[in-house]
Amino acid sequence: MIPETIFNLIEDASHVVLATHIHPDGDALGSLFGLGDILEAQGKKVFRYLDEPVSHLYDFLPTIPFASTDLDAALQFAEQANAEKGKIVAIALDCGDAERLGEARDRLLSIEPFIVIDHHRGHRDFGDHLWLESECSSTGEMVYELALALGAKVSLDAAFCLYVAIVTDTGSFRYESTSPRTLRIAADLIEMGVKPNEVAESVYDNYTLARLRLMEKVLATLAVYGDGQIGLISVTEDMLERSGASSDDVEGFINYPRSLSSVQVAGFIKEVKKGTVSVSLRAKGKIDVAKIATGFGGGGHKNAAGFRFSGKSIEDVQALVLDALNQAIA
Amino acid sequence: MIPETIFNLIEDASHVVLATHIHPDGDALGSLFGLGDILEAQGKKVFRYLDEPVSHLYDFLPTIPFASTDLDAALQFAEQANAEKGKIVAIALDCGDAERLGEARDRLLSIEPFIVIDHHRGHRDFGDHLWLESECSSTGEMVYELALALGAKVSLDAAFCLYVAIVTDTGSFRYESTSPRTLRIAADLIEMGVKPNEVAESVYDNYTLARLRLMEKVLATLAVYGDGQIGLISVTEDMLERSGASSDDVEGFINYPRSLSSVQVAGFIKEVKKGTVSVSLRAKGKIDVAKIATGFGGGGHKNAAGFRFSGKSIEDVQALVLDALNQAIA
Repeated sequence: MIPETIFNLIEDASHVVLATHIHPDGDALGSLFGLGDILEAQGKKVFRYLDEPVSHLYDFLPTIPFASTDLDAALQFAEQANAEKGKIVAIALDCGDAERLGEARDRLLSIEPFIVIDHHRGHRDFGDHLWLESECSSTGEMVYELALALGAKVSLDAAFCLYVAIVTDTGSFRYESTSPRTLRIAADLIEMGVKPNEVAESVYDNYTLARLRLMEKVLATLAVYGDGQIGLISVTEDMLERSGASSDDVEGFINYPRSLSSVQVAGFIKEVKKGTVSVSLRAKGKIDVAKIATGFGGGGHKNAAGFRFSGKSIEDVQALVLDALNQAIA
Repeated sequence: MIPETIFNLIEDASHVVLATHIHPDGDALGSLFGLGDILEAQGKKVFRYLDEPVSHLYDFLPTIPFASTDLDAALQFAEQANAEKGKIVAIALDCGDAERLGEARDRLLSIEPFIVIDHHRGHRDFGDHLWLESECSSTGEMVYELALALGAKVSLDAAFCLYVAIVTDTGSFRYESTSPRTLRIAADLIEMGVKPNEVAESVYDNYTLARLRLMEKVLATLAVYGDGQIGLISVTEDMLERSGASSDDVEGFINYPRSLSSVQVAGFIKEVKKGTVSVSLRAKGKIDVAKIATGFGGGGHKNAAGFRFSGKSIEDVQALVLDALNQAIA
């Protein structure tokens, strides 16, 4: 349930600045563009702020041209709203931590009141008002609830954005977080005109040749350990360069080692910028990867977690990770 | 809506023989095992007949040990029901055509009344009573409707089977056939205790290392033509051998060339037995691949078709296919 203070602030607002986390994924972008459209249909002025241009993976989302990476413009928009005696609110969507607002953090947070709508477990409180539903599959699901509460008209564009948000954050309704409510909201969105096959094609058939060239190289690194219970893959900057891929293109690769029937824990070791090595872990319930990630200064959920190192070689990281995973399955 | 005659026959039956199509997939098996469990919980005696043992891909389904490939035993079961003055019905699930009952066809159809429950477009009528819903995503969805109509208790095992049926026949709710009803039934099944992540793991994370080794080799064959509109991959017997994979393991590989945003038509050229080369084609709506397949003596749908050659080399087939596809996109 949406907290009353937050509902009132949004309902009364004349101007809204929307923001989300850096390197925005489908839930971040779908929620932001979906809510932007819903609020504009209610006659509010909306500024859609993004830290970086929308990745080619999500270039099919409607209303992208209305977004801006111009932080000065976002702050001017807020100042002008105040000058016009409008009511301004800022809303950060799908952002589990102030750090994840990126370099714009302090300046964005200067807009008041600052509302946070998020579904991440382990959310670290920031801003003035928090609506957190850690049982929710996605922020997109929460935005839909908000739209219902506001009695807002949800256009086909907005419904499409929210469906993309839900689909991408549940892996097509495959993750544990998929609840009866998730599926019923998706059913509502289809009734509003969303075509599930069009969403699937946009999300899953939107790849570049470079991504498949990279996938081939990354699959070649696949190695299994511990009687097949551990599956590891890795990517290096050199592999990205040789295949012409970008660091976005590795999204979802961790599902390959994870898809092995014997694998209990999958790891993806990424050297996408010289000097930094990041690690994603995925488990199937037997091992708590959040614990392992926390041990390395990272975080996450029981079945999905990550962490990063500076100044270590990819080989050193691989050895450290394998050690920790071997201990975990022992 | 279930036809009244069929509803009455099933409600009144004391003995039921369940059957499905040959090479049964997730919808066939999930519907059969789900309905078997539902009818048994109502006190009916159920014979689950299968043409062949359950594939390793679906070995996780509950109640498999209660199925039998013994056709004589199925017919004896029906005769005994009659001898005991019981009421027998046979039900074929998910079977679009009598031919798809396999060699058991005539003997199975001798059980009367013979009911057919199916959702395939282009269904060819057979049996005594047909319940066809070609708008339905899956036969699993229809079995759930039947259970509701019967006022039956749906056990967790049965709910799991029906969820598997729906998920496999909609590609995880990605296909066009996914309707609001599909998603709402899935929501009900989750409320009965089904864990969507457990279903997804059983269905999708059931692969062998050999499959991923083969995937790497097949991805290396990926080539695009016609300004990126055509994407082709191939597999040879030698690649299967070197990776230790079986010909089942190529399932779904055609989705990789198809996943390229530029691709309008994807082709997969398979030499899995020396002397025979088979070709699968997938389109995204712009090109009718059934037409191309028919030209080569094959068949299929507008967006998914196939054909095969004997006595041609894989290189010759590749050249022929590329020629035909180049003409089609021109």
